[in-house]
Amino acid sequence: MPAKILVCLDTDPQPSVFDGVVAVDAGVEHLFRHGGITPAAVQDLVYGAIFTRAPADLKNTAIFVGGSDVSAGEKVLAAVTNTCFGPMRVSVMLDSNGSNTTAAAAVIAAGRHVDLSKSTVTVLAGTGSVGKRILRMLADDGARMRLGSRSLEHAQQVADEVRQQAPQAQIECVVTTDEAGLRSSIDGAQVVISSGPPGVALLPQSVRQDYPNLSVAIDLNAVPPLGIEGIEVADKRVEQGATICYGAIGVGGTKMKIHRAAVEKLFTANDLVLDATEIYELGKSLE
Amino acid sequence: MPAKILVCLDTDPQPSVFDGVVAVDAGVEHLFRHGGITPAAVQDLVYGAIFTRAPADLKNTAIFVGGSDVSAGEKVLAAVTNTCFGPMRVSVMLDSNGSNTTAAAAVIAAGRHVDLSKSTVTVLAGTGSVGKRILRMLADDGARMRLGSRSLEHAQQVADEVRQQAPQAQIECVVTTDEAGLRSSIDGAQVVISSGPPGVALLPQSVRQDYPNLSVAIDLNAVPPLGIEGIEVADKRVEQGATICYGAIGVGGTKMKIHRAAVEKLFTANDLVLDATEIYELGKSLE
Amino acid sequence: MPAKILVCLDTDPQPSVFDGVVAVDAGVEHLFRHGGITPAAVQDLVYGAIFTRAPADLKNTAIFVGGSDVSAGEKVLAAVTNTCFGPMRVSVMLDSNGSNTTAAAAVIAAGRHVDLSKSTVTVLAGTGSVGKRILRMLADDGARMRLGSRSLEHAQQVADEVRQQAPQAQIECVVTTDEAGLRSSIDGAQVVISSGPPGVALLPQSVRQDYPNLSVAIDLNAVPPLGIEGIEVADKRVEQGATICYGAIGVGGTKMKIHRAAVEKLFTANDLVLDATEIYELGKSLE
Repeated sequence: MPAKILVCLDTDPQPSVFDGVVAVDAGVEHLFRHGGITPAAVQDLVYGAIFTRAPADLKNTAIFVGGSDVSAGEKVLAAVTNTCFGPMRVSVMLDSNGSNTTAAAAVIAAGRHVDLSKSTVTVLAGTGSVGKRILRMLADDGARMRLGSRSLEHAQQVADEVRQQAPQAQIECVVTTDEAGLRSSIDGAQVVISSGPPGVALLPQSVRQDYPNLSVAIDLNAVPPLGIEGIEVADKRVEQGATICYGAIGVGGTKMKIHRAAVEKLFTANDLVLDATEIYELGKSLE
Repeated sequence: MPAKILVCLDTDPQPSVFDGVVAVDAGVEHLFRHGGITPAAVQDLVYGAIFTRAPADLKNTAIFVGGSDVSAGEKVLAAVTNTCFGPMRVSVMLDSNGSNTTAAAAVIAAGRHVDLSKSTVTVLAGTGSVGKRILRMLADDGARMRLGSRSLEHAQQVADEVRQQAPQAQIECVVTTDEAGLRSSIDGAQVVISSGPPGVALLPQSVRQDYPNLSVAIDLNAVPPLGIEGIEVADKRVEQGATICYGAIGVGGTKMKIHRAAVEKLFTANDLVLDATEIYELGKSLE
Repeated sequence: MPAKILVCLDTDPQPSVFDGVVAVDAGVEHLFRHGGITPAAVQDLVYGAIFTRAPADLKNTAIFVGGSDVSAGEKVLAAVTNTCFGPMRVSVMLDSNGSNTTAAAAVIAAGRHVDLSKSTVTVLAGTGSVGKRILRMLADDGARMRLGSRSLEHAQQVADEVRQQAPQAQIECVVTTDEAGLRSSIDGAQVVISSGPPGVALLPQSVRQDYPNLSVAIDLNAVPPLGIEGIEVADKRVEQGATICYGAIGVGGTKMKIHRAAVEKLFTANDLVLDATEIYELGKSLE
């Protein structure tokens, strides 16, 4: 059988060591690591992947799109899928900034404690790249969503994007810049997930203490101060009253397991595109 | 035995995925892929190849020069061979833009159907990097050649270059800008090979139809419109009347086989320089 | 067991082929080769190394700092060790420009012929990156040292640096710009090691001939004219009267053995920092 080759297209100047190590641990035999990738560079590299092995062997070549900028990664992913044609294709996965595997790990963590299809889930700072993917995954499970954001316009735009891919998505947009808005975003929710930027506190303890029946609180920020006051980075199933808490490292084990499994899955067929929905489904199958 | 290491010196900013996959499939165990290579960078890299293993083990390290610019690759190849000295050397092959393996595949395809030593072969747009290599290979087989070009001066210069390496080469230069010239370049030839740039039609059907006894027509352009009207990219031994036709993909299987075999051959000795003649000989041995 | 991954952080634009081949021959299974590394790029890359495997498996990931500029490499090494914390660390070695392995090979060569703890060793041009490491290693063995330099101020500064790490170091600084100074640096010494820049003659035959009882003379310059007149690059244990001579290639075999062993040692624990002292100790253990 041909050796497993993973072509890493990274939008950062130096290709990610993180993604490289995970790929090796997922059984990749040869890593072709490329940094500084822009959509313009993609066609030649993809041609090199799809024109070098017989169609039946193409499942042993795959592409991983990474880098710290998720939006740049999305453009590279589009360039990859646009270059493939007919049977001339290799499988590809997007996980820029760990966005898909982190979002999947967070939603899966929540789903361990509540039935998401019957729950209301608040996603604070949900307009970011991880937040959007969380909404996309929650929509697949039929959850009612509240998208907390500083800008109603931006929130509605993101909600529309999610609905384009998942028309059944039930998303309510809430401006959370004042305490009243923040409280209305949480009131009656079973789950709150914070996916804001480093060092921005989104949910203070003084507000959270008034919602003791919140079932799950997850903070994906790895750099203190976290977005949800009172959660620690390493929290994993930590009970605070009736609320089960997770920090970024607390969902990290699940994230790593999903990341490795997704890379392994790339080599099972030559026509997979692993983005939010596919990676979430894969993650759930590992539970 | 020391692991097989192939140092890929690519003149493009991103090193070729194509060459990397072929190298892996040729049994290379470790690829050192370098992009953006200029002759100035070569010495240190070659020193790293020739000073790290005992002379008896140096055949397990080799160098591949690639990239889309053949003329840049030729300069890098020269820098590599100039850096090696005495027993301190590793084998090296040039295949920038697939030039040597593609040329060899084309000439070998023609040689399946005619005795090249007794044939007249027209090479349209023969002054390019692939064309020059085709002429060099045809000279080895003793073919009579017609070099079609837009510029007599440029054609004569290329013919002189080929004769410097192969003094026996019989090359007639023909300016093919007008139909009379084009017709005179084809009249009486058994084989025509077109190696022009993408999208430039060199031999229209209206002219070709008047030479029904042409035995072989090969077009190496992979992007329509091809250089020889009436040939399709995927044509492989397609009979059009008495003429057997090949397109770029039609000679692709042979090209890949030669490419892999050439990389394998690099690791059989530490003093090989695989350029046009050597790669053509290798290709013929695989038939 | 997880595959052995070596992350090569090279401060030159193209990562070293030399260091790559040695790593492969030391049993590294996957090389992640990075060129153009500055301290600013280090944190993300190190995070990728320390956050991807369980603590018990982290000894299978390691970092090699290389490149032609030793001082740039030292800054990268500092950035690596500053990023690691608690149990989240991987082993790292510095060998920019081969400085540590070359210095160790030179001092070990000298130690084969004299008892360094009872010897006076002159290090000509000892303020350079290799010279400093030689002084550091000699201090570990309790040798009396003479640091020859063009600048007393620079020499004293380097001597102070060495004493900060090895307070017991006995270093006498000598300005060697005139013949009297040069003679006083050698008079009574058992060993002289020259680690100056390429093409600068430091010790002429006319001076050396007056010190026939010198036991060992080692010149680490690989480009003629060497620093010690009368020594050839390939000299290895060559006797010139009572003096045993080594050139750069003459200590090269020992250097390669130490280099390979140091890379192998990286994978025995996850908390090693292999710099001058550690690499010298390792080298002595191989004798």
